[in-house]
Amino acid sequence: MLGNFTYCNPTKLFFGKGALKEMRGELAKYGKNVLLVYGKGSVKRSGIYDEVVAMLKECGKEIYEDAGVMPNPTTEKLAEGCERARAANADLILAVGGGSVCDYAKAVSVSAYCGEDPWEKFFIRFEEPSGKIIPVGCVLTMVGTGSEMNGGSVITNHAQKLKIGHVFGEEVFPKFSVLDPEYTFTLPAYQMVAGFYDIMSHILEQYLSGTDDNTSDYIMEGLMRSLVHSSRIAVKNPLDYEARSNIMWTATWALNTLVAMGKDTDWEVHMLGQAVGAHTDATHGMTLAAVAPAYYRLIMPYGLHQFRRFAVNVWDVPTKGKTDEEIAEAGICAMEKWMKEIGLVMRLRDLGVTEDMLGGIAKSTLVMTGGYKVLTQEDIMQVLRESL
Amino acid sequence: MLGNFTYCNPTKLFFGKGALKEMRGELAKYGKNVLLVYGKGSVKRSGIYDEVVAMLKECGKEIYEDAGVMPNPTTEKLAEGCERARAANADLILAVGGGSVCDYAKAVSVSAYCGEDPWEKFFIRFEEPSGKIIPVGCVLTMVGTGSEMNGGSVITNHAQKLKIGHVFGEEVFPKFSVLDPEYTFTLPAYQMVAGFYDIMSHILEQYLSGTDDNTSDYIMEGLMRSLVHSSRIAVKNPLDYEARSNIMWTATWALNTLVAMGKDTDWEVHMLGQAVGAHTDATHGMTLAAVAPAYYRLIMPYGLHQFRRFAVNVWDVPTKGKTDEEIAEAGICAMEKWMKEIGLVMRLRDLGVTEDMLGGIAKSTLVMTGGYKVLTQEDIMQVLRESL
Repeated sequence: MLGNFTYCNPTKLFFGKGALKEMRGELAKYGKNVLLVYGKGSVKRSGIYDEVVAMLKECGKEIYEDAGVMPNPTTEKLAEGCERARAANADLILAVGGGSVCDYAKAVSVSAYCGEDPWEKFFIRFEEPSGKIIPVGCVLTMVGTGSEMNGGSVITNHAQKLKIGHVFGEEVFPKFSVLDPEYTFTLPAYQMVAGFYDIMSHILEQYLSGTDDNTSDYIMEGLMRSLVHSSRIAVKNPLDYEARSNIMWTATWALNTLVAMGKDTDWEVHMLGQAVGAHTDATHGMTLAAVAPAYYRLIMPYGLHQFRRFAVNVWDVPTKGKTDEEIAEAGICAMEKWMKEIGLVMRLRDLGVTEDMLGGIAKSTLVMTGGYKVLTQEDIMQVLRESL
Repeated sequence: MLGNFTYCNPTKLFFGKGALKEMRGELAKYGKNVLLVYGKGSVKRSGIYDEVVAMLKECGKEIYEDAGVMPNPTTEKLAEGCERARAANADLILAVGGGSVCDYAKAVSVSAYCGEDPWEKFFIRFEEPSGKIIPVGCVLTMVGTGSEMNGGSVITNHAQKLKIGHVFGEEVFPKFSVLDPEYTFTLPAYQMVAGFYDIMSHILEQYLSGTDDNTSDYIMEGLMRSLVHSSRIAVKNPLDYEARSNIMWTATWALNTLVAMGKDTDWEVHMLGQAVGAHTDATHGMTLAAVAPAYYRLIMPYGLHQFRRFAVNVWDVPTKGKTDEEIAEAGICAMEKWMKEIGLVMRLRDLGVTEDMLGGIAKSTLVMTGGYKVLTQEDIMQVLRESL
């Protein structure tokens, strides 16, 4: 049954080829100091950096740089960003990059003036922002996280071997995001397909949980069918605008809060994947892909109805003469087949995990309570061993 | 292919049983003068009026009333509402009712200070608002129009026998809407099922158009499957909270701009239905139901691929051994079967239309250009005759 909820998503999106030009109107709404946040330099090689800087200058902005955001942004980098934001007296943080850069920009936006250790405040104690929040805008260059239209931010603490996300409220959502599918064309195939599974995982974390038969489930089935369809085209031809644009749009709606409204959600695959990430620095989407099948087989008996539905409505598994268990298993097999087809990493060993690391990863894995089964430490070890 | 677009939907929704209490925080954001807009009195009989008034008083608001909004709000009523809004110096217009009341509230919000004839400005010349816009909030008591989360407003001019809608920009969207499914429980069955077809029609106007295979199409298939599923439960037991809440949520997403992003849309069924409404004052959803099958059969050859997809993905029509034409026709037949099952009016004659009125209705029908076929006057007459 749909539970009670409040829905509000104020982020303005500019979508399509050449959409960057629409950002002009937005820039006019903020003061002149812009903290330009980006990663390791791919935006310079692709020319996107030059386009953005040219527009900022045209609009009379003072540009302050914060480069070098890593794929799994760290507490150390966050501290540096806060200092830069304060030194610039930033009126706007403009993130140019993928989900990590957007996540990081949001973390800086709430942390720069929070007056204490942001790791402790937001990622350990899960408190809400209290001080000034610097507005954030995004120019997206990699698809998957949905960070361009939500309040999520994931930060990694290497000393504590923890990678933890905080979902902030709408006051932290990006004010605007530019989504130009062509900006994702230069992304290496490995990152592209990792993003595809990140999208699938976002949907599954919200779909494979609860006992509902509600509108969100139907919307998610549509999103998954669209993703499977377009991803098969994109891996063959990464320059297929139609496929890449539909995937970009699917990714946004997979994790901008809509499909979670009124329903239970799980997120245990993300907890497992984030623990792997904290120990290996592996690409996020790949960590999810490596642990998902074993996890789903473990919890399947506890949510059989929904796994059966997943098989039939997303993967067109024929039902005639089969038990519910057989149908559900065939759905997971169909997903695995698709995962291999698009080139995902299916084993933890291929992400640098060795058997002796499993105990540590298990210890770093947060246990969620919204799914079909609350995992024991033994369950977690079983999933990790089977995923190795 | 997904075309370029800007997406922004800032309306805040409070959804669920007892959601009205969440309105308190919103009311605090506006000045003390509230123009309370409602219809012919059903909100008084249901007790919703008393709940709303009690809360407004608690929050220290000065209440000014604007009652008697009719199912197809007229230009005369609009003029009256503008006067009342100005006389009240309204800081907020609070619409308590269904789509007509919400539509009307938005029309008043842009018209009260527009300084000229709003019918001419907004509904004939389709100009954008220029003067002050009074903020609008909604408490929804009938499901179907999506007016609670969009900028749409439909007004009827009886003298000109025209019923025309204007889709305003995000500055006219309701600031907040309260969606309590239990508030829809007292609605008569006739109005309830009319609303169900209004929802289906909103989706089809956006689905049966264009040549795309995009994410929006997949989302719409999910919304339609959810609607068909829940509507069958709701007609048997209108007090089924799960069904009514899922329908309420589906209705909002069927027409809050999302599924139209980047794709062609049609809206000719609405043009035909609105012309019928202008001549008969018949219930909106029923006018759409009566003309839709004949219209779809007329345009089917021009959009066969999408009609085929509709049949397979929404109605599970088996494809084996059938031509595309046969599959597409079976999809329309499946929809008609569902329409009869839930009790929709399938004939114009049952809405008070007589043969001699068809010419006038055809003349009042606006011709849209986004669908599979731009209708000629002869086409329109054919659809109307076949729908009689």
